Amino acid sequence: MTQVKAYAAFSATDKLKPHSIKRRTPADYDVKIDISYCGICHSDIHTARNEWEGTNYPIVPGHEIVGIVAETGPKVTKFKVGDLVGVGCMVDSCKTCSSCEEHLEQYCENGFTATYNSEDKKSGGFTHGGYSESIVVDENFVLQIPKNLDTKAMAPVLCAGVTMWSPLRHWKVKEGDTVGIIGLGGLGHMGVKLAHAMGARVVMITTSPKKAEDARKLGAHEVLISTDESQMANYQEKFDLLINTIPRHHDLNPYLNLLKRDATMVIVGAVELLDKFHGGQLIMKRRRIAGSLIGGIKETQELLDFCGKHNITSEVEMIDIKHINEAYDRTVKNDVKYRFVIDMKSL
Amino acid sequence: MTQVKAYAAFSATDKLKPHSIKRRTPADYDVKIDISYCGICHSDIHTARNEWEGTNYPIVPGHEIVGIVAETGPKVTKFKVGDLVGVGCMVDSCKTCSSCEEHLEQYCENGFTATYNSEDKKSGGFTHGGYSESIVVDENFVLQIPKNLDTKAMAPVLCAGVTMWSPLRHWKVKEGDTVGIIGLGGLGHMGVKLAHAMGARVVMITTSPKKAEDARKLGAHEVLISTDESQMANYQEKFDLLINTIPRHHDLNPYLNLLKRDATMVIVGAVELLDKFHGGQLIMKRRRIAGSLIGGIKETQELLDFCGKHNITSEVEMIDIKHINEAYDRTVKNDVKYRFVIDMKSL
Repeated sequence: MTQVKAYAAFSATDKLKPHSIKRRTPADYDVKIDISYCGICHSDIHTARNEWEGTNYPIVPGHEIVGIVAETGPKVTKFKVGDLVGVGCMVDSCKTCSSCEEHLEQYCENGFTATYNSEDKKSGGFTHGGYSESIVVDENFVLQIPKNLDTKAMAPVLCAGVTMWSPLRHWKVKEGDTVGIIGLGGLGHMGVKLAHAMGARVVMITTSPKKAEDARKLGAHEVLISTDESQMANYQEKFDLLINTIPRHHDLNPYLNLLKRDATMVIVGAVELLDKFHGGQLIMKRRRIAGSLIGGIKETQELLDFCGKHNITSEVEMIDIKHINEAYDRTVKNDVKYRFVIDMKSL
Repeated sequence: MTQVKAYAAFSATDKLKPHSIKRRTPADYDVKIDISYCGICHSDIHTARNEWEGTNYPIVPGHEIVGIVAETGPKVTKFKVGDLVGVGCMVDSCKTCSSCEEHLEQYCENGFTATYNSEDKKSGGFTHGGYSESIVVDENFVLQIPKNLDTKAMAPVLCAGVTMWSPLRHWKVKEGDTVGIIGLGGLGHMGVKLAHAMGARVVMITTSPKKAEDARKLGAHEVLISTDESQMANYQEKFDLLINTIPRHHDLNPYLNLLKRDATMVIVGAVELLDKFHGGQLIMKRRRIAGSLIGGIKETQELLDFCGKHNITSEVEMIDIKHINEAYDRTVKNDVKYRFVIDMKSL
């Protein structure tokens, strides 16, 4: 075990502060990564503040990790020292259940090991995330980051990016499809970029007219203001797929109307009770509401390769780690375009 | 036009009573059917009582019609006088939209013509349903009824039956799948019979322990009492498909937990606001909630042929038409096993 510098929350109400954690020495299949950058995901905040309950303090958040391989276990074959790599929301899973066998570790029947706040089956205790100088991860959960892109802007791809990519791929978006991305934040801005690059007609659906210009710059072909009833009426039954990134409970009914027959609205943001919806909205057009959770390791690598090919990165605002608590407050207020990334040199 | 005897509602609050309506003379592609039997669907009651609003009085309900061809228009090729035939919820559609072209007239983009209370594009006025001595229908919306079955028990197959068949087929139920039918009424009892005949492991999910014996007789392999938390816990993530026939708003959350990853709960009953559901229930297992509306003409014929082959009929309680108002009251109280059918000789 090695002592490593990190930032941690010690209670639901305290600010995050410097902390020292232990990392295991790389085992046979482990890779030790010196962390260059770590994105700030809203889940980090929910967990640090125990808003989902079940937080084990002290907690070191961070699951949008980019860094350089510093050491490899004796049996590692996929990576070598000096490789540019990433780690997302998962660092382990059972590898034997049907979900794992289908490369859907995020739905592991035995529960995947999250990058932070999960029971650590290898070292004991709980896992610690990327707000730290290094991390040790099973090579099967480490990803190759393309070298032709702005590295720091790749961190959010590992969570926000794949959360959008997975449903876009699973629901088989193809050239010419009309795809609506609901909400322009960390997730939504990646959805616009990815759906655009996949050849879809992308409509940004937002409550904020002031976001229209930005949405178009990111790749939206059209912007639909969801509070404008006449605009919404014009888009009735126009969408092949909607991805709903709104992170709070909200009324689904106005959006359901936008779906064509047999089309799906995928919820990726709201891990909470949603408002009532009208059964007839689904029945009359055989519409569907689905959920989708991050993405598997294989599809995350596919996404990273796709980003390399299509020159896609996140839009990021860099911070030093000492500003983490302000960044949290601003994230909660949605005052970030579109993702904070910590420069880990500042640790 | 011919005068025809019927039973009609004249207002939302009055009882149904005898009435005389006009039926058109069969046009080129029309079939005149002397009605032998007509099932009572809960939709008849909602419409007669204007519970969904938009009822045009006087209204003659009834869309589970079985009868004998009495006359054919000059260009009819599919039927001849004396044929045993049926009519379900639709008597016409645009025939040109993408839904109609895919044999999904129930989702006709221009709106199908319902068997009653729809604008009648051929005769003017509004369509009148099966609580009458005869009906005239475009041959493309008339179905062949297999001759080897109890004719009167086939009427409910045309609405209740196909409402279950369509999702069972669309979501590709196959031998060995575990299918849950939620609610044992007119729809649910057909769902149990059909899913059983398709080779699925059928679980009847009901709030009433007293329905267990009946459910097993109808073909359920297991009965799950939805109010029993420990039973529900045992069935977590066990279902490939759930068909939810509950006709009222209700809490979806306990049922969502029963679905495997990527599995769907199809709502066929509740054309109203459903209670709040938890987004996480969908997200964590990529589950789906969908709706489904009756079925297309082609799949209704497939169902009727399937019933002929597998000896499947509805469970019915026969009534004379003068008892229609009591039958309505009993249907609302769910006091019928499992569908009232009017013997039209009693008109």
